[in-house]
Amino acid sequence: MSLSFRISARDGPARAGILDTPHGRVETPLFMVVGTAASVKGLTGGELRRAGAEMLLANAYHLAVRPGAPALAERGGLAAFMGWNGPTLTDSGGYQVFSLAGRRRLTPDGVLFNNHVDGGELFLTPEKAVEIQTLIGADVMMCLDVCPPARAGRGEAEAALRLTHAWAGRARRSWREAGGQALFGIVQGGLHEDLRRESAAFLAGLDFPGYAVGGVAVGEGTGEIRRIVSLTAPLLPEDRPRYLMGVGTPGDIIHGVAAGVDMFDCVMPTRHARHFQAFTREGRLNLKNAAFAADDRPLEAGCDCETCRTASRAYLRHLAALGELTAMILLSIHNVRFYLRLMERLRSAIPRGRLAEVAREYAGSDRLGGRLP
Amino acid sequence: MSLSFRISARDGPARAGILDTPHGRVETPLFMVVGTAASVKGLTGGELRRAGAEMLLANAYHLAVRPGAPALAERGGLAAFMGWNGPTLTDSGGYQVFSLAGRRRLTPDGVLFNNHVDGGELFLTPEKAVEIQTLIGADVMMCLDVCPPARAGRGEAEAALRLTHAWAGRARRSWREAGGQALFGIVQGGLHEDLRRESAAFLAGLDFPGYAVGGVAVGEGTGEIRRIVSLTAPLLPEDRPRYLMGVGTPGDIIHGVAAGVDMFDCVMPTRHARHFQAFTREGRLNLKNAAFAADDRPLEAGCDCETCRTASRAYLRHLAALGELTAMILLSIHNVRFYLRLMERLRSAIPRGRLAEVAREYAGSDRLGGRLP
Repeated sequence: MSLSFRISARDGPARAGILDTPHGRVETPLFMVVGTAASVKGLTGGELRRAGAEMLLANAYHLAVRPGAPALAERGGLAAFMGWNGPTLTDSGGYQVFSLAGRRRLTPDGVLFNNHVDGGELFLTPEKAVEIQTLIGADVMMCLDVCPPARAGRGEAEAALRLTHAWAGRARRSWREAGGQALFGIVQGGLHEDLRRESAAFLAGLDFPGYAVGGVAVGEGTGEIRRIVSLTAPLLPEDRPRYLMGVGTPGDIIHGVAAGVDMFDCVMPTRHARHFQAFTREGRLNLKNAAFAADDRPLEAGCDCETCRTASRAYLRHLAALGELTAMILLSIHNVRFYLRLMERLRSAIPRGRLAEVAREYAGSDRLGGRLP
Repeated sequence: MSLSFRISARDGPARAGILDTPHGRVETPLFMVVGTAASVKGLTGGELRRAGAEMLLANAYHLAVRPGAPALAERGGLAAFMGWNGPTLTDSGGYQVFSLAGRRRLTPDGVLFNNHVDGGELFLTPEKAVEIQTLIGADVMMCLDVCPPARAGRGEAEAALRLTHAWAGRARRSWREAGGQALFGIVQGGLHEDLRRESAAFLAGLDFPGYAVGGVAVGEGTGEIRRIVSLTAPLLPEDRPRYLMGVGTPGDIIHGVAAGVDMFDCVMPTRHARHFQAFTREGRLNLKNAAFAADDRPLEAGCDCETCRTASRAYLRHLAALGELTAMILLSIHNVRFYLRLMERLRSAIPRGRLAEVAREYAGSDRLGGRLP
């Protein structure tokens, strides 16, 4: 079975929907927990299930380097390999080639680069990216795109876009729909509104099962992200899932949902946890702060995660001060659950026309600091 | 309620029993998972409960440095602070003073030392060790002892023993039984049989609620550990719990149980997990070994832990090769469960007179390597 998507309710441009994948049904809007190298850092599959995770994201670049795409295929594919057995998505690796890899050479045909692990050389083409992701076996694959710096000038952004479009066409042609894995196109165009419009129109013409908004996760201020998302989301085909790549803070996600985005992913909940920061509706708490040393409250009142049911801020502060592994785990459990609960709230608000209420409830969540005791 | 201990079955010198503590009932022989600084590295309280953990061990030295014993008392004591709320034991810190601390000066009254974290000075006496542990609030506290190097000569071992005995008397007198926390005496005497005999007899005369065998965990070969344990355990009061400190491998534990020991603790399951080694009945597996790259089997056939139910050796090998946090967690879950299952097997074997059978079943477990695929 391939991907199917059905919108079940609306609140303005926002949509609630149902996404059926070869590895099961999930509801949208949804947040994909990031497991770059087939592992969500600090969380076992059991913890992810207990936190209510629905779909995981991994990265074809990292997996192609280790353990290798053919090895994953031999082990039954990504979802089985991870013991997750639920829906997954792989990014193509384009972003990583342009951000992580060593020496690289971009040609119209593809990109030649040395990986950041052992310097091994790979010539990645749009077709090769599809082939690698087909072997990895996620339910959703992404086209290989060209990712110029966020602040690229008009000329550079335009050249990157032309190549991204050419590659999208080639990826679309090399994709075997019959295999059951979906392929999403990625809208680029930087901060240039006319390029974003052109990109959305061009990709819509290629008839992908889903569409992503790329190039907005890194290096832009929140205002810029939101401007591009508000502009681009409504340009994407109404009946296909829309995925905002690598975004973002709780506020960015709420904004994206309100603009009509269905899928998100971000390293923030797990990465911040490893830096001892906890998300709450009143802002992020830095658990290294001595102010929490005598604070017997949970991270967030009313949170149903295992951490909030068992650990006080004082205990977490003690573990964070020592740099204990267990602090990273407990904070990862909370932060992931915080994001997943937010998505649950958004999904249940849309059919009742109450999106604005959820947005108000989470209005303080992007602050760093929170109300200290 | 204070500690109470009842022997329910025997198999030769081995005993199965029931230990009632202020924080609940546990069955012996039992293995205490080590949470040195009020945290079992890599495992949340939820994981520990799912793995069947019964009693945790923490260290008064580490806790006195951070967050401080009074801070723990204010937070409701160790078990509540950790969100564990089950039975706990604290070591006195004696061993750490002699192994971890910087500059130290031993006097008949106590030991002056600088802690290894911020160099802060503390004069630890037998009375102070009881006071600190009373504030920390574990169900079982340990006497402050003098820990000479394992290979100390006769003179040094004897002098250390005299001081340990004097300190045991002072600790016993300063202990307030009414508080509900038990205090265990620690038999020392190094590798000298006559000193071990003298120590067991002397401490028995002080009428402690329980007795530990100290000074055998580090620096001795397995044969030496076992010789001292076989000698010392039967010398301890029959009706009190016997605790073998810091021991050991699965084979050491089976030997200790057969010799009549009731309680154990060891960092091996969690420490080896962080070095990507997994315990199995056929030996320890090094998950960094490329031999596991295509091994779809669980770590150990028949293991009921979450790791064995969800992760293959190939997946764990992939994560170990990357040094992923999640590999440490998954291996910690398995290793702790391995130890706790061993204890379950031993407890159920004793009433049926089948200890020797369990020993045979685990005969290969101390090997490094295991049968590779």
